[in-house]
Amino acid sequence: MIGIAGGAGPFAGSELFRKIIEETKALSDQEHLPVILWSEPALIPDRTEYLDGNRNENPATGISNVFLALEKAGATVAAIPCNTAHAPAIFDEVKLLLQKADSRLTLVNIVEETLRFLHSRYQKGTSVGVLSTTGTWRCQIYKQALEKGGYHVLEPLTIKEQQDIHLAIYDKSYGVKAHSSPVTDKARTIFLRAIDDLINRGAEVIILGCTEIPVAITAPDIKNIPLVDTTRVLARSLIRYFAPQKLKE
Amino acid sequence: MIGIAGGAGPFAGSELFRKIIEETKALSDQEHLPVILWSEPALIPDRTEYLDGNRNENPATGISNVFLALEKAGATVAAIPCNTAHAPAIFDEVKLLLQKADSRLTLVNIVEETLRFLHSRYQKGTSVGVLSTTGTWRCQIYKQALEKGGYHVLEPLTIKEQQDIHLAIYDKSYGVKAHSSPVTDKARTIFLRAIDDLINRGAEVIILGCTEIPVAITAPDIKNIPLVDTTRVLARSLIRYFAPQKLKE
Repeated sequence: MIGIAGGAGPFAGSELFRKIIEETKALSDQEHLPVILWSEPALIPDRTEYLDGNRNENPATGISNVFLALEKAGATVAAIPCNTAHAPAIFDEVKLLLQKADSRLTLVNIVEETLRFLHSRYQKGTSVGVLSTTGTWRCQIYKQALEKGGYHVLEPLTIKEQQDIHLAIYDKSYGVKAHSSPVTDKARTIFLRAIDDLINRGAEVIILGCTEIPVAITAPDIKNIPLVDTTRVLARSLIRYFAPQKLKE
Repeated sequence: MIGIAGGAGPFAGSELFRKIIEETKALSDQEHLPVILWSEPALIPDRTEYLDGNRNENPATGISNVFLALEKAGATVAAIPCNTAHAPAIFDEVKLLLQKADSRLTLVNIVEETLRFLHSRYQKGTSVGVLSTTGTWRCQIYKQALEKGGYHVLEPLTIKEQQDIHLAIYDKSYGVKAHSSPVTDKARTIFLRAIDDLINRGAEVIILGCTEIPVAITAPDIKNIPLVDTTRVLARSLIRYFAPQKLKE
């Protein structure tokens, strides 16, 4: 089965599940793939808070426990739809904990899959904009991966601009995590302004590098600049690993 | 944990998961409830085909296996977001199989919860319209429950009208199961016409009694006649059983 380590956040898990269905070739219920979504949010502390040093507990412990539970339930391929969890300080520890537990689960990495997606469509040297949480930004998760992959990376320049985006994800009065359906106008406006800034600075394609952002911004492009929904990229990669013949064109 | 027996169909499982998130009081990831969505569609043969006598294998076997897997994974309260699976020929067998396996899972029944919802808002004698699969219609799942509950029930009158609705759910070229995002205009038009017929015949409230129908018809009412989304009713009931203090007003 395909395993989804949910809970970080819960809505992103739901979105990944839905996008796996949407990207699967199937005309009846029975033709769809077996998927388990394990969402136990209280097990996984906030990723950015850990990376910023505001929390001691590494979310890797909870994340690896969810992966092990998924494996025990029958998953052979799995992923966590949270970009920030892919910071080496967290994800390397997840891999280590799974190794120690003799796990044979194939982990699919959202950042690596996004880079692979870019390589399939964009030449080296392309200017790639990235929007993310402050944890992802500070750890340069996308910046390092994309530069290594030959791309020119554009991100918010100041902590103030970055923090605006982070709050559009996290703020309890208007952020996506607290208000996902519907998303508030304020959160959407902040994302749109940040996208506009990246386009003005020359971005030729923009990665929505936090799985909460495509909840608010569902358009495939803005001003003809494509937006990459990392949740959908991950959904397609999971299908490709598990049952490539079922992947929609 | 809350368990969702998915796969019947996969999209309905995804919708139930999403609606549990939407109906939960939570301002951060960690405040959301623990939920497992177990979607193994190939295990659960089509419910209407079994009820119509076109298939021998009772879907109850697969459904009860998914419930037992959910229980083993930690679920204490669970439901299957498929109205047709609540025909006594299927659901009574599910309960029997769980009993035989010494299951202690609390099963939440979508039809009973919908009746409870109606009792909380509508007086006895109210005319209640119902749209469903042909399996649900033929077995009179809602008709019997609602009439016992004191309501006047309106359903499609002829097998032809009923079969149009069933095909808007099942048809491989335009039905919701094969085409859920986006839903086809043809499927939506068929549902809207059927809703219109029920309103013209005097329905004061209409139950969308197949979890695929609210995928196509998301409005809360039409011509001021409320539409009851049974998936959302079930989501709220699961929260009420599991953690009543977390249920949104």
